[in-house]
Amino acid sequence: MRVFNFAAGPAALPTEVLEQVRAELTDWQGLGASVMELSHRGKPFMAAAQEAEATLRELLAIPAAYKVLFLQGGATAQFAAVAMNLAAAERTVDYVNTGAWSKKALTEARRLTGRVNVVADEAASNYTTVPEQGSLRPTAGAAYLHYTPNETIGGVEFPYVPDGAGVPLVADMSSTLLSRPLEVARFGLIYAGAQKNIGPAGLTVVIVHEALIGHARAGTPAVWDYKAMADEGSMLNTPPVFAWYVAGLVFRWLKAQGGLAAVGARNRAKAQLLYRTIDTSGFYSNPVAVSCRSWMNVPFTLADPRLDPGFLAESHAAGLANLAGHRSVGGMRASIYNAMPLAGVETLVAFMKDFERRRG
Amino acid sequence: MRVFNFAAGPAALPTEVLEQVRAELTDWQGLGASVMELSHRGKPFMAAAQEAEATLRELLAIPAAYKVLFLQGGATAQFAAVAMNLAAAERTVDYVNTGAWSKKALTEARRLTGRVNVVADEAASNYTTVPEQGSLRPTAGAAYLHYTPNETIGGVEFPYVPDGAGVPLVADMSSTLLSRPLEVARFGLIYAGAQKNIGPAGLTVVIVHEALIGHARAGTPAVWDYKAMADEGSMLNTPPVFAWYVAGLVFRWLKAQGGLAAVGARNRAKAQLLYRTIDTSGFYSNPVAVSCRSWMNVPFTLADPRLDPGFLAESHAAGLANLAGHRSVGGMRASIYNAMPLAGVETLVAFMKDFERRRG
Repeated sequence: MRVFNFAAGPAALPTEVLEQVRAELTDWQGLGASVMELSHRGKPFMAAAQEAEATLRELLAIPAAYKVLFLQGGATAQFAAVAMNLAAAERTVDYVNTGAWSKKALTEARRLTGRVNVVADEAASNYTTVPEQGSLRPTAGAAYLHYTPNETIGGVEFPYVPDGAGVPLVADMSSTLLSRPLEVARFGLIYAGAQKNIGPAGLTVVIVHEALIGHARAGTPAVWDYKAMADEGSMLNTPPVFAWYVAGLVFRWLKAQGGLAAVGARNRAKAQLLYRTIDTSGFYSNPVAVSCRSWMNVPFTLADPRLDPGFLAESHAAGLANLAGHRSVGGMRASIYNAMPLAGVETLVAFMKDFERRRG
Repeated sequence: MRVFNFAAGPAALPTEVLEQVRAELTDWQGLGASVMELSHRGKPFMAAAQEAEATLRELLAIPAAYKVLFLQGGATAQFAAVAMNLAAAERTVDYVNTGAWSKKALTEARRLTGRVNVVADEAASNYTTVPEQGSLRPTAGAAYLHYTPNETIGGVEFPYVPDGAGVPLVADMSSTLLSRPLEVARFGLIYAGAQKNIGPAGLTVVIVHEALIGHARAGTPAVWDYKAMADEGSMLNTPPVFAWYVAGLVFRWLKAQGGLAAVGARNRAKAQLLYRTIDTSGFYSNPVAVSCRSWMNVPFTLADPRLDPGFLAESHAAGLANLAGHRSVGGMRASIYNAMPLAGVETLVAFMKDFERRRG
């Protein structure tokens, strides 16, 4: 029995992928061993790793000038690695603050870099908006402009890609990468923790233009030096082989779904259905400006928070799992990444309407 | 069909553990989701994580003054993290060089720390020995003394724990932790990549005395700051939940095997059987001084290296997998970690004798 799992991350994986993992868990490719038990430098895993990268490149149409790295440490490690690799300690770096994850990124950058310039901060809207298109002005000579295209907690999403005006754009795409087509060439560097749309936690994908690597500041640990890792095919140290293998299966699954155009259309439909349900009710609400509502993470509140425990208990009993909002904000949150089928959102919406009718 | 898998790492896991992982892969604890798909902060995973730590503490009788951390990045990340956490940039740090992994550790330390003092180097023996007991003299005032109790490539192992003489002892136990009982109180810090005796690659266990944390140098990234990680129960960022869960199953399995005294006795018997076979043949040889031969990694050569391809092909066909030596040294290597049953070594030994009879 599988539930509809709305967890924000680690999040649901496609059931078909998990079934394949299960089928070959103790004997992968007829080798008499699990993929977890084999050398990352052996031919079988090397082939799987290369196929994973090739499929990811195909899905996102990643230009040849970009390196794709499979690293450890999650987005939080990248908060530091980006600064250490792209900016000398005294160089100015620009950050956009649109909520909890932007703030974590810039707080970590402040530990490492002298001049962290917050070029936009959406505090005035209580982080329910993003900067108006065209309004972002990078600092002249900044090493990069960092932003968070999708805020997993706030449910706020950029409906556009900012113009770096010559300053490399760095994006934490942990909760949005692979959710729709993307023009990679607009970015200097994209990073994403795997545990939303890619695979198991413990893997981080970094897509970086080759012009930005090779400039890590002195004292950058080898495993965090993009150039050192790129030169070794992400195998300077033992990579997280199982997570990389699962990511490869997810990429293959995305391709079988019709690629990112098809996946994106389905994600838009899922989000529209859920927001429409919220907006047409007098009982549920979502605070985010309509133009920048996330397709991936939909926070919502009930008219009476005393009904929250009942909502959670009854939805859980109905096979709709992990709808509690982030501990910092409360309420509800439905994370509807790629692996959530439309049927899951339809079931949720039907439950929400029924709950409102009975308890609203 | 499962082979006897002699891979050095990622290495064999207990078949019973993998079978449990498989059984609950798509529905863990009746939650209708995989353990990979659930929040690390939810009650089910928190309970599993805490049980894993408690079982590890019980197995190694870890004193309460030590923190146990579940991190990412492998031993190679710790090569840097140890220096960043335990030593100011200009402080002297001591390293013992007994082979490939020691050398990697001290090379990384040199990138980060001004004064790396190599207090012993076994180059004269071509790294087939360790320093004589009692001969190591830490530098007065050194931040720590780092050594590698077991060299995975050279198959060289310390038969004793060095005396730090007041300087905290730091040990890379990636390939030996949990292979036998250990007196943790002799160490300041122990670290181990998981992929030999603990679980899937992508997890690193750090056991550190609380007096050594809280002194990370300025600019240490948060996810590499032992104090920051200890304060957050290793969940400052999303941990590698699947690897942590498997590690917990492995710890439980070790307990069911009778704990580390029983496991150690079995490991000694496995190693003795293999070394005896090598030493009593005129065909196989192992270059390591008898007193410091590894229980975990047994490199050996054939009298005629032209027979290597035949040995590898025939052993593979006999269900004895991954016996090729490390790419840097060639020959053969049998890694016989905890998950390798005595029957595996018995089968290998029988094959070796038969091969020698036919081809020697």
